[in-house]
Amino acid sequence: MTRLFRMAAITLLFSVSSLGVAAENYTLRLAQTWGPNSPILGETTENMAKMAEEMSGGRLKIRIDSSNKHKAPFGIFDLVRNGQYDMGHTASYYYKGTIPNAMYFTTIPFGLIAPEMYAWFYHDEGMELMQKVYEPFGLLSFPGGNTGNQMGGWFNKEINSVADLKGLKMRTPGFAGEVMSELGVAVTNLPPGELYTALERGTVDAVEWVGPALDFPMGFHQIAKYYYSGWQEPGAEVQFLINEKAWNKLPADLQAILRVAMRTAAYDMYIQTTHESGVAWSRMKEDYPQVTHKTFPPEVIDAMREATRKLLAEAAEKDELAKEIINSQHDYLKQVRQWTNISDKAYLNSIATD
Amino acid sequence: MTRLFRMAAITLLFSVSSLGVAAENYTLRLAQTWGPNSPILGETTENMAKMAEEMSGGRLKIRIDSSNKHKAPFGIFDLVRNGQYDMGHTASYYYKGTIPNAMYFTTIPFGLIAPEMYAWFYHDEGMELMQKVYEPFGLLSFPGGNTGNQMGGWFNKEINSVADLKGLKMRTPGFAGEVMSELGVAVTNLPPGELYTALERGTVDAVEWVGPALDFPMGFHQIAKYYYSGWQEPGAEVQFLINEKAWNKLPADLQAILRVAMRTAAYDMYIQTTHESGVAWSRMKEDYPQVTHKTFPPEVIDAMREATRKLLAEAAEKDELAKEIINSQHDYLKQVRQWTNISDKAYLNSIATD
Repeated sequence: MTRLFRMAAITLLFSVSSLGVAAENYTLRLAQTWGPNSPILGETTENMAKMAEEMSGGRLKIRIDSSNKHKAPFGIFDLVRNGQYDMGHTASYYYKGTIPNAMYFTTIPFGLIAPEMYAWFYHDEGMELMQKVYEPFGLLSFPGGNTGNQMGGWFNKEINSVADLKGLKMRTPGFAGEVMSELGVAVTNLPPGELYTALERGTVDAVEWVGPALDFPMGFHQIAKYYYSGWQEPGAEVQFLINEKAWNKLPADLQAILRVAMRTAAYDMYIQTTHESGVAWSRMKEDYPQVTHKTFPPEVIDAMREATRKLLAEAAEKDELAKEIINSQHDYLKQVRQWTNISDKAYLNSIATD
Repeated sequence: MTRLFRMAAITLLFSVSSLGVAAENYTLRLAQTWGPNSPILGETTENMAKMAEEMSGGRLKIRIDSSNKHKAPFGIFDLVRNGQYDMGHTASYYYKGTIPNAMYFTTIPFGLIAPEMYAWFYHDEGMELMQKVYEPFGLLSFPGGNTGNQMGGWFNKEINSVADLKGLKMRTPGFAGEVMSELGVAVTNLPPGELYTALERGTVDAVEWVGPALDFPMGFHQIAKYYYSGWQEPGAEVQFLINEKAWNKLPADLQAILRVAMRTAAYDMYIQTTHESGVAWSRMKEDYPQVTHKTFPPEVIDAMREATRKLLAEAAEKDELAKEIINSQHDYLKQVRQWTNISDKAYLNSIATD
């Protein structure tokens, strides 16, 4: 009996040491900005949670609460900071009221496109600067998925000059809204549920939402004629937030699993948006042939760029860290865009497929 | 004693069942096409192996052998098929001699760019068709990293017409080489080590390699004047190959870890190439200001497209599966490119940064 007991004890020790990890299970609670069954964005957290659970053999579970549960779609930052949730999935620029510098980690007008943005995060100063912003709040922030290049919006009249923007009633939130205000647009920020009716009834003349994949379910293509290419969110990256204390409780292997699951889910979201935008845009054109794609004329683009530069310069002057982030993105764009121009841009321009 | 023994036995059972996995360690042997310390490509397998080891708490190790060890850089397919290695990292189009249909899973002239290619793999028919090609050989194939849009090559004279291509001596391998042959180019495939000297001495007039990140160490910018944008490999995806028997021996959690580690390492390679191409291209222009970026004129592009179409039509006629793959990519490109055109292409064209 003693011999058998020793054998069992030895087997037990061997089993634990060959694993190198304690056999404890962990459940992290995640609050997301999005509602239940939210396409693409909600699928991203599900994808992440599924990968984490499968890779950990069930030891790491993520329990996802949507906005109908926690009732604070734009309060994820606080929920995670206060430890009411261990994690969040949201967008950094929603919190620019509390932390103005949070904005730059989502996207800025005339900024980086998706692969350039990831390159800035992972190979230049992006991750380091983002951590500088979130560390004082006891939070870790990671890229959480890219929406791709967002569209400039649905318009009921053509925009041929800056004068056409004056007095235009448009739904466009955030920094883009500030830029549009500078150009004389009457900016409003209606809740999503009211947008279709407002555009149909002429309460607003234009609506900016995301891009074909997420615009399609909103139905704007049924009532607006012009779909303008974007300038304001060239590669919007949403965000995973983690409470630092919750993170530190995880053993090293589960931290690695969580880090990689978030990274992969983020990339996957960019690819899913690419796919679903293609599908939705081709359906829009087929079902509503009157929908016309337009680009803003150079005069309008130049005015938007000038207003963007002015607002960024003001932000940089007010805050040392804002200046550091703005300059870092600016310098990085200057370098990487030269490559984008001679590769994808030159290639896409060399073949007519319109 | 009996009671203690029982307790130990119960603890042991509990420990194993709460893990849901056996505590066995696995080492997979990977053969890669690339030599030791190969930038980007070699870093991709190291990145993958590191993620797998960390996420598994050391239970899954990947031992990487470079070409100096296994001596078969273009024989990875056989090494993995025969079970001499469990895994490989290589490019599908290297094996078009043995399996002509392998080619389409890397890239084709005038085909998909990187995000479009991933969307085809993961959201359209790409993965399924690739598996159809590799299954008869007892292999699993996964995307292994994207080089981004490759450049058209280094030229010592300007190409202003199709006539300028006639008799031109150029190093350009694979399908692009066949297209160039159709246009009268004298195609040669010199080994990498001889390219610089051949271009310098005029043994060849032009050399196509990859793009700035991998061209920089080759030094072509020091001796060639014109750097042409590409048409032939718009989003080349390299490949992880796995022997099916080796895969089936892994428990479910390690299969999940390996699958996600490969997927992430592939995306990471695309982002690393984006970054390093930007860095290398800006250094080339700074150090050698005579280097001039060019695009092939429409007449030349049209001739290349026509030759590409002809060769693809011939391949489709010969083989039913080839036809299925070619049509699938063609249809997918037609849809997704409409989106790329109104998003990234329109955006990049709206702002002058050259």
